[in-house]
Amino acid sequence: MTFSVTILGAASAKPSATRHQSSQLVNHCGQYFLIDAGEGVQSRLVRVGVNPMRLTAIFISHLHGDHIFGLFPMISTLGLMGRKRPLHIYAPNPFGEILEYHKRYFDSELPYEIIWHELHTTEHELLFENGVLEVWSVPLRHRVPTAGFLFREKPAGLNVKKEAIERYDLGVAQITSAKRGEDVALESGEVVPNAALTYTPWEPRSYAYLSDTNYSGKAVGLVKGVDMLYHEATYAADMRREAKSRGHATTHDAARAAVESGAKRLLIGHFSSRYKDEEALVAECRELFAESYIAEEYKCFEIEMKKL
Amino acid sequence: MTFSVTILGAASAKPSATRHQSSQLVNHCGQYFLIDAGEGVQSRLVRVGVNPMRLTAIFISHLHGDHIFGLFPMISTLGLMGRKRPLHIYAPNPFGEILEYHKRYFDSELPYEIIWHELHTTEHELLFENGVLEVWSVPLRHRVPTAGFLFREKPAGLNVKKEAIERYDLGVAQITSAKRGEDVALESGEVVPNAALTYTPWEPRSYAYLSDTNYSGKAVGLVKGVDMLYHEATYAADMRREAKSRGHATTHDAARAAVESGAKRLLIGHFSSRYKDEEALVAECRELFAESYIAEEYKCFEIEMKKL
Repeated sequence: MTFSVTILGAASAKPSATRHQSSQLVNHCGQYFLIDAGEGVQSRLVRVGVNPMRLTAIFISHLHGDHIFGLFPMISTLGLMGRKRPLHIYAPNPFGEILEYHKRYFDSELPYEIIWHELHTTEHELLFENGVLEVWSVPLRHRVPTAGFLFREKPAGLNVKKEAIERYDLGVAQITSAKRGEDVALESGEVVPNAALTYTPWEPRSYAYLSDTNYSGKAVGLVKGVDMLYHEATYAADMRREAKSRGHATTHDAARAAVESGAKRLLIGHFSSRYKDEEALVAECRELFAESYIAEEYKCFEIEMKKL
Repeated sequence: MTFSVTILGAASAKPSATRHQSSQLVNHCGQYFLIDAGEGVQSRLVRVGVNPMRLTAIFISHLHGDHIFGLFPMISTLGLMGRKRPLHIYAPNPFGEILEYHKRYFDSELPYEIIWHELHTTEHELLFENGVLEVWSVPLRHRVPTAGFLFREKPAGLNVKKEAIERYDLGVAQITSAKRGEDVALESGEVVPNAALTYTPWEPRSYAYLSDTNYSGKAVGLVKGVDMLYHEATYAADMRREAKSRGHATTHDAARAAVESGAKRLLIGHFSSRYKDEEALVAECRELFAESYIAEEYKCFEIEMKKL
């Protein structure tokens, strides 16, 4: 039941000697999702030991080059590698046009289908779901249409307590019924309330990616109680005005988002190339929110299971 | 009088964990030229200590993604860095359309001009020259229109021998005249032939980049006597048929090009990702041509001055 986020890039638009442009890999129970695709992301995936062929879907927050220039080379490479499985890409309009252009000039004969899902950046919409996970869009406030992403596990089904099975001598039909949340009638006629028979094995976990954005109270409201929050912190706290005018956040904005959403942990990244000392940036976050961490490239942040 | 080539990428289309896609940096007397621009080239330039702002011109051999995907992110970064100086790009048609598309979606407000020079891949044309250097196109044989590049120093001007100046007591006008290659009349009426007064200080040096291509006798003829030859060797010698059908060369093709052009040194690259052991590939070249070397990434190959 792995749920982890590996940082593949935490630079802002201008890459530095040590940092790459935005990208993250989410591993949920062995399904891989990419968030944003800064230049060179395919090489960094290989470096963290994940074959890009394994990607299920790619989520692009907005159409600035530093979040998308790595996508097109990877699309080509997947073709060379003979991918057959469709690739789902969630990105704002006019991604479809850009993709058509790319295919016309560079990849006119891809052996797999790319399915573009338009990301409506003003809506909080369910984008993707499987049996155990949902991915939602989170509207953000940037210079161009931008949305973040909320990865949220579905509530776990009910488990039936072993001691209840023994005590009431439950059969398969009764266990199935209890798992569905129903009260169970015994042969004696006694009705045992569901709460006495079942428990929730674990609490659903969640991860939110909010970048690029000004501080947004609306976005914070949509990710309440998130276990791990990535929030951009392009600027130090003293650059509040610059951050605001450029559609970015400061360290204090990121920390405030963590505090007000009730996040358990905060990761910051998308640092301006002017900052060499990331420790100074995270120290500013910790003035407001102790559980703040640098989104270090190649580091894998696990979200632990919380058994109930 | 530096003349060097730094390898920034020597992979073929599919990048490997250790090799990047094609790109090379030519430094001629402190002027920087880029040949091809595989993904991530801007980071590799920074890694070899060259600010991409310093590039004078970029030469793109053909419009396959592995030779050009790094160009567009670098165009954006140069904008962010505030480049004002025009950037000259030599590339085949329809590069102009691709550039327009890129600008429309990603860089509508660049602070510098990009001047596209159409590279006619069937012609041996002078593309660029300054006071000391010429760059020529060299038609190649690939699956799409492709040209290589020949960097060739202009012949050095004549120097006047110190001992001749003393012996004949030459004045400024006479020295200038001798430098122009003229015979010089002395006050005594004696005429000294130019050959007795002057010498050529050094031999012009040259570098040729031939990739991607089948073996081409025509290309070889155009780079006769080159000091250093880069020739692609996508495949080992036993893959001759595959190489031919895909518009690529084998190690033996590359070595043959070196032998037949009379090159002094051969660099090979553009290796298929199937090959882990580059030493085995260069060993095949050395069966035919001893001065064969692997185009190791980040390695700088100097072309020494040859004083006469």
